[in-house]
Amino acid sequence: MVKYEERLDRVFRALADGTRRALVERLAMGPASVTELAEPHGMSLPAIVQHLKVLEEAGIVTSEKVGRVRTYQLAPDALSVAGEWVGRQRLPAEQRLDRLDVLLAADPGTHRRPDSKES
Amino acid sequence: MVKYEERLDRVFRALADGTRRALVERLAMGPASVTELAEPHGMSLPAIVQHLKVLEEAGIVTSEKVGRVRTYQLAPDALSVAGEWVGRQRLPAEQRLDRLDVLLAADPGTHRRPDSKES
Repeated sequence: MVKYEERLDRVFRALADGTRRALVERLAMGPASVTELAEPHGMSLPAIVQHLKVLEEAGIVTSEKVGRVRTYQLAPDALSVAGEWVGRQRLPAEQRLDRLDVLLAADPGTHRRPDSKES
Repeated sequence: MVKYEERLDRVFRALADGTRRALVERLAMGPASVTELAEPHGMSLPAIVQHLKVLEEAGIVTSEKVGRVRTYQLAPDALSVAGEWVGRQRLPAEQRLDRLDVLLAADPGTHRRPDSKES
């Protein structure tokens, strides 16, 4: 259980910074090199590398070095530990509304009125 | 936009601590006084009050003082800003699987096999 708590500590701490969140948003669209990740931030490469290190230690990103280029990507299930914890803390009434939202958005066809007919 | 980023900073920083997460878990079950919240932690009241202050500044809990008793409760939509941000960062394939999970869990009746009959 300690490991789970530690992982949550690290993930939430990693996300408590706007630059690191922007890096995650970029990597959610696909893998990128350090240079590509640094570009929009106007930060030095070492500063970006430091942020990426925090994300990697939290298990949010992974990296791979091919030749001289290190590429980062979002880890599979990168944020699921955080998402699941947050999802469990909603008040019961909110949870019911959330489920309804998802149902209506994902599968409107099953929610037709009882008097409508299938052809 | 700054306000939104600042709120995310505070919410994620507030959640990066096991005691504060335990307080949120307790308050998701219903309002409680400081004394009730302190009990399971074996911490001093001032230490718990300090954690509750961090949660309140992040907009996660609200408090109300009646007479000499201050009662805390989870704020409506307490963690939705964090949950929504996390939800958006999943890889596209994961998002589809998540929606399927919720559908199956929330409304199994609409997913019966086509050859089953309603009575």
